[in-house]
Amino acid sequence: MNTSTIGPGTPPGPATPLGAVLAFDIGGTDMKVGIVLGEPTSGVQQLTDLQRHPTPLDGERSGDTVCARVVELTGSYRAAHPELDIGAVGVTVPGIVDEVNGVGIYSANLGWRDYPFKSTLTAALGLPVAFGHDVSMAGEAEFRIGAAVGKANVLVLVIGTGIAGAVLCDGKRVVGDGYAGEIGHAMVPAPEGGLAILESLGSAGAIARRYASATGADVDGARAVLALAGSGDSAAARVWSDAVNALAFSVAQCVSILGTETVVLGGGLSMAGPALFEPLAARVDELLTFHRRPNFVHAVLGENAGLIGSALKARSLLAGGAQ
Amino acid sequence: MNTSTIGPGTPPGPATPLGAVLAFDIGGTDMKVGIVLGEPTSGVQQLTDLQRHPTPLDGERSGDTVCARVVELTGSYRAAHPELDIGAVGVTVPGIVDEVNGVGIYSANLGWRDYPFKSTLTAALGLPVAFGHDVSMAGEAEFRIGAAVGKANVLVLVIGTGIAGAVLCDGKRVVGDGYAGEIGHAMVPAPEGGLAILESLGSAGAIARRYASATGADVDGARAVLALAGSGDSAAARVWSDAVNALAFSVAQCVSILGTETVVLGGGLSMAGPALFEPLAARVDELLTFHRRPNFVHAVLGENAGLIGSALKARSLLAGGAQ
Repeated sequence: MNTSTIGPGTPPGPATPLGAVLAFDIGGTDMKVGIVLGEPTSGVQQLTDLQRHPTPLDGERSGDTVCARVVELTGSYRAAHPELDIGAVGVTVPGIVDEVNGVGIYSANLGWRDYPFKSTLTAALGLPVAFGHDVSMAGEAEFRIGAAVGKANVLVLVIGTGIAGAVLCDGKRVVGDGYAGEIGHAMVPAPEGGLAILESLGSAGAIARRYASATGADVDGARAVLALAGSGDSAAARVWSDAVNALAFSVAQCVSILGTETVVLGGGLSMAGPALFEPLAARVDELLTFHRRPNFVHAVLGENAGLIGSALKARSLLAGGAQ
Repeated sequence: MNTSTIGPGTPPGPATPLGAVLAFDIGGTDMKVGIVLGEPTSGVQQLTDLQRHPTPLDGERSGDTVCARVVELTGSYRAAHPELDIGAVGVTVPGIVDEVNGVGIYSANLGWRDYPFKSTLTAALGLPVAFGHDVSMAGEAEFRIGAAVGKANVLVLVIGTGIAGAVLCDGKRVVGDGYAGEIGHAMVPAPEGGLAILESLGSAGAIARRYASATGADVDGARAVLALAGSGDSAAARVWSDAVNALAFSVAQCVSILGTETVVLGGGLSMAGPALFEPLAARVDELLTFHRRPNFVHAVLGENAGLIGSALKARSLLAGGAQ
């Protein structure tokens, strides 16, 4: 069984009592599920028996089908791990999420509207259920045990097929009744004039798509476009620079409005490393005047950050803490 | 003596015990000062003996000269109002402000850098001193007893010679170590292409300046440009529409990133009323997709909101509450 240890500090020894929670990250295609073991005080988390299953989509009734699958998989995990006392379940979904009431307000990809996930799952499982937005929970994990520990004013940008964000202001994650963090759909100036949404220029998906559209050539993702740009392909260089400009514009908005001091970059595009971080920081610098300059850091929790964040939230229910 | 009553509910009768605080709003040209009487529970505030004095500027030493004048005026007010027990002082300044430590980090107009206002004044006055940023305190007042009471996700835009903002997320004003709220210096697309700061297009000052620059004609302020636009002057219409577009762009950024539900408009330009509010709401609507639409409301505390907010903060010191 694959077990990975995540978070600061020394992993606990086998004798350490660990609170076990089962975390689900529901995506538009797949759902990930895994057991997260953690020590509340040290922040160290162990993710174990990670599985991936197709998300059972059924249009507007996807809330029901997803919940049924969560219940079924919880039963399987409990049967497979009789040694663990799974005390709570965490579930994250995309879209607009009402965390406080545990409702999936809307998901374009999954089809539901106003689906009461938390109450449905709590009743069906007989366990405390933490419910949240996928990228918000990933952000929460980076804030609490990841790249932004100790920072109070943070923007987490997850740049993959699309772009989503999580915002920490004065040490608190901004919820905005579930509407916060939709920075991928915020407007930025388009290179050809007019406006575009950030995601349509700055995401890994957009970079590949825009290069293919500009050249007619097929390209294997944003990293390939970056490699072409490095080898002197001017169309690739332009597409890459458009992406950097768009991302920098949105980062600078956050700095101006919120005083953001730390920008955590995650998702596939962040793997570009200095080729992304350096021009991005330089461009942000140009867009600011007397504002402070943010530091750019790499997300540390990887693609399972949402599961970890969801587990942290679920464990806080066990501990009797705030959600 | 001019006394005005501000805030919700019924003004307290003369027998009601009122906590008296002296509030100073230090501007680049003038400083306003007045006694604010209020009942902590009802939120009703009375502003009395409002005076305006020139701000004593002395370059980098303006911190010292301003503090000396605050101390002097506090003495005059105490002497003039022996019947009132002035128990605390509130001071607001522009620029970058460290509210937590009571330090004026930087003000371009007033000249100081890292000036310890709170400790200097507390020592000199022997009274509790609340120290904050002028527009942040105005926002605080609108949040607590003004246009945004009961709202949790709010943008306050004060649009005058320049533009400044205050942001409330999930019921808490964002401080960002003093760097939040500088939305007037956030980038927006410029009408001629490229980028400009919001203030250079959307402020009352910019509207008058841009019209004069476009036509060579002198114009008496933004309201005059609006009147010209209404009478068919195409240059005026263009300048006005550029301002609305710029303001809408910045509002839409906040909605996308923070889920802002209420936009409070204050400052001179907000007096344009429906001629501003209606096209602004329409343009914001165009810039959003699945996000919720914010409501636009008029600031209710007027030009003395900063004094009121400062007084509320000072009174919370008296009450032993958090700053």
